[in-house]
Amino acid sequence: MANKSSTESEGTKAEAQKAKAPGEENVIYVGSKPPMSYVMACLVQLNGGAPSVTLKARGRAISGAVDVAEMLRNRFMKDALKVKSINISTEQLEAEGGRMKNVSAIEIVLEKK
Amino acid sequence: MANKSSTESEGTKAEAQKAKAPGEENVIYVGSKPPMSYVMACLVQLNGGAPSVTLKARGRAISGAVDVAEMLRNRFMKDALKVKSINISTEQLEAEGGRMKNVSAIEIVLEKK
Repeated sequence: MANKSSTESEGTKAEAQKAKAPGEENVIYVGSKPPMSYVMACLVQLNGGAPSVTLKARGRAISGAVDVAEMLRNRFMKDALKVKSINISTEQLEAEGGRMKNVSAIEIVLEKK
Repeated sequence: MANKSSTESEGTKAEAQKAKAPGEENVIYVGSKPPMSYVMACLVQLNGGAPSVTLKARGRAISGAVDVAEMLRNRFMKDALKVKSINISTEQLEAEGGRMKNVSAIEIVLEKK
């Protein structure tokens, strides 16, 4: 996957990514937008030189995150992307009235082959 | 109206429609019922001696499958069940009018510790 972007802008890009928390650079949070928005966000990361991208989603958006991963893997980056790991977990959110509510979450790490 | 896709190396369609194979006994298909129905079905399998249980779901039901797995792991069989593997895939379904439609699927294998 040769990337045609000019090398002179590479330094600025790297610096921009360093500003984020370590290990959290390539995280895309999947919500209720159409899946293609997140597919595009992932493609920007991956074509910008990132070796992997992490999709995170909670609750109903979990199916959307799986859709995004499958679209990337089977259509947009066919034969160039693999699922590195998938983790599920439970997060506690504060619901209305201050009560705590459990919500399931998923984390899908996609890596360039 | 038979829509014949190329026969070569297209296992996806066959997989989507294959009947239950041997060794597939402990599969719980998660659909649109309340999560507790599937939690109960899993508990019946696990307490009946099954060493593991596989949750399968497609499309919107994927988040439900994650909910069921998390409820089992954190509440009903706390410290006695672990996630063995999680796989995501794409299945082809025949939509109305005979057109093929891609739908994401998840398979979560839970195993007794």
